[in-house]
Amino acid sequence: MKFVRFKNEDQVLLGLYNQAMTHIYDLNHLIPEKQFENLNTFIEAVNEDELAVLKEISCCAALQEFPSYSASDVTLLAPIQKTKHDVLCLGLNYKEHVKETAKNLNHAPTMPEHPVYFSKRVLEMMGPDDTIDYTRSGSTQLDYEVELAVIIGKRGRDIPADEAEDYIFGYTILNDLSARDMQARHLQWFKGKSLDGFTPVGPCVVHKSELPLPLSLDLKSYVNGELRQDGNTSDFIFDIPKVIADLSTGMTLEPGDIIATGTPKGVGMGFSPPKYLKAGDEVMCEVEGIGSLRNVIK
Amino acid sequence: MKFVRFKNEDQVLLGLYNQAMTHIYDLNHLIPEKQFENLNTFIEAVNEDELAVLKEISCCAALQEFPSYSASDVTLLAPIQKTKHDVLCLGLNYKEHVKETAKNLNHAPTMPEHPVYFSKRVLEMMGPDDTIDYTRSGSTQLDYEVELAVIIGKRGRDIPADEAEDYIFGYTILNDLSARDMQARHLQWFKGKSLDGFTPVGPCVVHKSELPLPLSLDLKSYVNGELRQDGNTSDFIFDIPKVIADLSTGMTLEPGDIIATGTPKGVGMGFSPPKYLKAGDEVMCEVEGIGSLRNVIK
Repeated sequence: MKFVRFKNEDQVLLGLYNQAMTHIYDLNHLIPEKQFENLNTFIEAVNEDELAVLKEISCCAALQEFPSYSASDVTLLAPIQKTKHDVLCLGLNYKEHVKETAKNLNHAPTMPEHPVYFSKRVLEMMGPDDTIDYTRSGSTQLDYEVELAVIIGKRGRDIPADEAEDYIFGYTILNDLSARDMQARHLQWFKGKSLDGFTPVGPCVVHKSELPLPLSLDLKSYVNGELRQDGNTSDFIFDIPKVIADLSTGMTLEPGDIIATGTPKGVGMGFSPPKYLKAGDEVMCEVEGIGSLRNVIK
Repeated sequence: MKFVRFKNEDQVLLGLYNQAMTHIYDLNHLIPEKQFENLNTFIEAVNEDELAVLKEISCCAALQEFPSYSASDVTLLAPIQKTKHDVLCLGLNYKEHVKETAKNLNHAPTMPEHPVYFSKRVLEMMGPDDTIDYTRSGSTQLDYEVELAVIIGKRGRDIPADEAEDYIFGYTILNDLSARDMQARHLQWFKGKSLDGFTPVGPCVVHKSELPLPLSLDLKSYVNGELRQDGNTSDFIFDIPKVIADLSTGMTLEPGDIIATGTPKGVGMGFSPPKYLKAGDEVMCEVEGIGSLRNVIK
């Protein structure tokens, strides 16, 4: 099941792809007894029986059975527009990225013994094909980071690693745009990660039933068609169950929370000289089984 | 004007103190044409004329003119329960605290050239007299930090320092509870600052008209009656206008956002040996002109 938020003429709707991804059903017509304002309220309110019905529809329903839109006629938006909390992020969660970061900072690489967490404030998530307005940001070192993002489905605290999957709703792609100069200037990473427009997500939210743990998904990024990052989530230093268990220790996770799981080698900062983004650049982030997320820098 | 959230029998209400702070008016009776669900919606919706009316009532109305509660009969709650974004925090914003932090980490103190920002995730704010449940948190180094917190009143980006006060609604006290072992273990400070219950605020929100910039407010903390921190906001390394200007560069601030402005010398970590909090300890945070915020550790 792949969930989307999309625009058809002047209407913003929530949708569910059919299996062939040629069409999108209007989600609020599929469970008529509940109406969902956005994917967050859907994730919070949908139950297992309803998910089973949706799965059946997405895989097997004839197109004429439910109102649907041709996928090529609509504009996809960020599947999630806002979050209840800042996005939870992992830094340094791929070995080769730890090495390139250390090289950029002129010190020897040290693998983290514990996950490195920071947060990313989001005014409004950017979606597929949205332009990232980087003017007047105060930074001149804009960098890309393709990441697999986990979307939490159920409230929990002190979650055991072997139950972590129960707390997941699904997955999307997140480009953890980063102002490297600000990250360094303010010592803590928060501000350099949190500028307006710095969180493109999409193109869809894939339900966990399509991507069972442990994950072994290729993830890649391209700038103007040039392959920059080429990793696989099986190279996580800290895997998803470990992260959910550790992050939820003493800290309650809530439905709709997003955990960005870190980025593989190949960010702009890692090149010598660095290859930062500039106006007009097109960044494409891909994760196997989810799709691709394209944004152009203004 | 001092705004509060309080409980009277089973009702949770928003309130405005009278000048003598003996009584609390029910805020939703004072502007009957608007009803406010919480202080965030109030801050977002109230206009200058309404604030002038409220100021007049708080200073000069006879008690019988409006429904009110005796302050001694009600229980104060956290004035703000949740925020739209994680709390924006400054680290290392008092010189003497920079020195004690460096000493604890065994390196020479370096004064920050730029503000150090991090964020604090909040499940629900704690209020005056709330017990902080620290069991099962995974940390054994709980520390206190008295801070002046700025509450943003107006949406803005790229705010000039000399207009910063226009974007402030008021001030409260925030105890930036910190798990020092987690702060160190995860490299970035986020997780060690963000455990459930780690953000007591209150006892009230003081409107900026009572505390005009530049601020020179004493702030103190006591543990079991022992004075630990004794600073003054005039010792900020980066003052409030500078912080609002810098933080809003490329990043939109929204009404209800909270900026915790850093803590002065005297945190538990700064003593040799460190004086971390333990079960049963009472922490009292005071800021001149706002009041005191008392919490007991479970």
